[in-house]
Amino acid sequence: MFTNIKDTILVECSVSDIRFPFPALGPGSDANNAHTTYSNPYVVITDSDGHKGVGIGFTLGLGNDHVCRAIQELFPLIEGCRLADVVSDFRVFWRRLANPPQRRWLGPYSGSCYMAAGALANAIFDLAAKREGLPLWKLLVSLTPEETVRLIDFRYVEHLLTPHEAEAILADSFDSRHERMLAVEAACLPCYFTTWIGTDPASLTRQIGETLSATGIRHYKIKVGVDQAADRAKLAAIRAEFGNSVTLYVDANQVWSPPQAVEWMRGLADYGVTWIEEPTAPDSVDGHRYIRERLRPLGIDVVTGENCPNSHLAAHFIASGAVDRFQIDACRVLGPAENMLIMLIAKKYGIPICPHAGGSGLDELVPHLSAWNAIALAAGSDSAITEHVALCSSHFASPSRVIAGRLQLPVEPGYIVGMTDEAAARFCYPDGSAWASERSP
Amino acid sequence: MFTNIKDTILVECSVSDIRFPFPALGPGSDANNAHTTYSNPYVVITDSDGHKGVGIGFTLGLGNDHVCRAIQELFPLIEGCRLADVVSDFRVFWRRLANPPQRRWLGPYSGSCYMAAGALANAIFDLAAKREGLPLWKLLVSLTPEETVRLIDFRYVEHLLTPHEAEAILADSFDSRHERMLAVEAACLPCYFTTWIGTDPASLTRQIGETLSATGIRHYKIKVGVDQAADRAKLAAIRAEFGNSVTLYVDANQVWSPPQAVEWMRGLADYGVTWIEEPTAPDSVDGHRYIRERLRPLGIDVVTGENCPNSHLAAHFIASGAVDRFQIDACRVLGPAENMLIMLIAKKYGIPICPHAGGSGLDELVPHLSAWNAIALAAGSDSAITEHVALCSSHFASPSRVIAGRLQLPVEPGYIVGMTDEAAARFCYPDGSAWASERSP
Repeated sequence: MFTNIKDTILVECSVSDIRFPFPALGPGSDANNAHTTYSNPYVVITDSDGHKGVGIGFTLGLGNDHVCRAIQELFPLIEGCRLADVVSDFRVFWRRLANPPQRRWLGPYSGSCYMAAGALANAIFDLAAKREGLPLWKLLVSLTPEETVRLIDFRYVEHLLTPHEAEAILADSFDSRHERMLAVEAACLPCYFTTWIGTDPASLTRQIGETLSATGIRHYKIKVGVDQAADRAKLAAIRAEFGNSVTLYVDANQVWSPPQAVEWMRGLADYGVTWIEEPTAPDSVDGHRYIRERLRPLGIDVVTGENCPNSHLAAHFIASGAVDRFQIDACRVLGPAENMLIMLIAKKYGIPICPHAGGSGLDELVPHLSAWNAIALAAGSDSAITEHVALCSSHFASPSRVIAGRLQLPVEPGYIVGMTDEAAARFCYPDGSAWASERSP
Repeated sequence: MFTNIKDTILVECSVSDIRFPFPALGPGSDANNAHTTYSNPYVVITDSDGHKGVGIGFTLGLGNDHVCRAIQELFPLIEGCRLADVVSDFRVFWRRLANPPQRRWLGPYSGSCYMAAGALANAIFDLAAKREGLPLWKLLVSLTPEETVRLIDFRYVEHLLTPHEAEAILADSFDSRHERMLAVEAACLPCYFTTWIGTDPASLTRQIGETLSATGIRHYKIKVGVDQAADRAKLAAIRAEFGNSVTLYVDANQVWSPPQAVEWMRGLADYGVTWIEEPTAPDSVDGHRYIRERLRPLGIDVVTGENCPNSHLAAHFIASGAVDRFQIDACRVLGPAENMLIMLIAKKYGIPICPHAGGSGLDELVPHLSAWNAIALAAGSDSAITEHVALCSSHFASPSRVIAGRLQLPVEPGYIVGMTDEAAARFCYPDGSAWASERSP
């Protein structure tokens, strides 16, 4: 399975606190978050051969240091382990990282300590992919159904998907996998672009026009939920300018009660909205089901997932008819393996996966997950569309790229691969030059 | 409503890291946690008159410092506010504390940052009760239905319980409230005792016999889930010694998959087990429902809640038939107000509330919540039974007390009231004398 890492040991871990300063109501702003500072707990794991794997978490700024600290506190759980063991039998290390002694009470299976475990998992898979000389998606696609299932802890979803069923799903399309890989590499992946709450209708229309010209992307997400009249004005302006040549999604970032979500969305239904994202609390399965049942007659899909803390809660959303599509997040759960479990469950229950991105580094991670979904699970439909904003992509060594409206598959060995040296120094908080200039008058 | 705190301002917050050293497999041990160190993030809020309110969180040891740090980081959200405003219109401050800018991403509504908000809420209500010269339960019982509803943010549960319905539930039994208060003060509250996983059958039987003699408690919870034969041996030994004169509960602390929970419990059904607690992931509503449906023919109840992160997830458990009883935790959610919401929902759906305690300080907090439930919501049945272990009670200034098998209602003004000065110094981590002796050979 892994040819180059037979005796490699995980020996060291260093963590940096990376933060990108944004203005209030600027990039990343939404109905719940007027001022975000996209940030990454940034971990580098060094192996006994001196090779380095990079993993990131993702936060909105304040509190990024909590995840950084938790990463350092959790590393001893894998320190001294053979990389080949960790990766090939990841289900064992999944359970270990998800249940750190005493600290598991701080979640369990959610919160900054769980995100720290996710950042470590991301680093481990980055390291393994680099050592095998493959972009992560290609490494994962090369695994047999048996090898894939060994990455996953099914404990809390076993009533919805057994390891045996998962293997059967993977085996079902295994013979056609190589052919499908060539097709997906040629066609690339569908994607959409996101705009922010602090943008007036005229600027929004201009931004969409520019993005469409520059990238060819025809799918746009608009932040809503602060002022319904303003939401209507924005959607009306976009439809006036672009007619039905663009697809529109809206995103309320959890600000509504379930009944309020239904009422608000009835007021936006005239503008041809394809989905409402995060209408209410991100762990409220029954809240989403309540909303979905009432919006179905309007043809508006209900989606969520970027704040869903773990795979068993995701499984409940997916299997119980609470959402029309599910939005995995590359940094909230326990790395690629836990996202593979969510995608397997989504495959079984026929729910498309639409990965969350936009945040720093997320744009770079999710193409790997979408590619695996499209190739290994034959989830090839354009309903499985990936977010792509590329706000911070220029600071990463293997930036996400869109050509003619399609998200390209990564080619560099690794997963996040890493930040550029210049950016890693500049955005290090609080001493990097980006923050020194923030503090000057 | 609050007569003594009209112009009082919240001015200062100090936090200590309190930890109680326990041996491995000793107090607090269970199938998931072989070695716990019961701990409290311990916050003291000082008001502008120099009065002090004490709040605690609760953890199992490692990571207690994360909650301590988060408390200090969140205090500015209420610093300088009028205590009377915060308490009387707590729903506003609930939303503020639950959604701290940028940091909300670290949950949301779960994890160490949310627990920190809960500790602050606990301190605020302790301060208000002290200033009014009442134990908290008596202060809460004195509120009208309208005043009570103003403590609560209904946003994420509004499809299950509206503020109007909650007020009606409270109004329904309001006229008989005083009479019921006298009755509950006289009869006190039902309670049960918990034993730990690292105890052999003979020691377990001896411990139960001693506890029964000393306290009169006839309800016992046994930790299970590591070794089914050992579980059977323990239950058999207890039944051999005490026959059916004691009620037995079992607790698996989340170690099973849903199918495994059903199978394991079928093997314990012969011993007259009243409930299985935490059979699987604590946020898996559908997992619990799966188990409950299959254990109903055996007459075994399914209960959970101490690791349920918030009221909207609790509401889903309660309203959807996933549990037979719900176990609120005084430190996991946003203080007394969020627990009152959970109890209101449980009242509406006819599910008894059985508060989690046992951990340091929890025993002191939960009688206030159970008393409010019994008096304000007329949840007077013995099905609403409260945990009581009193492991660390002697270190608290107003310790939990059981007489003739009944849990006494607190009489000191306040909520947690505080630790004794001696204990606060001794268990302060890492410099207190309890930890100095841990480090010596």
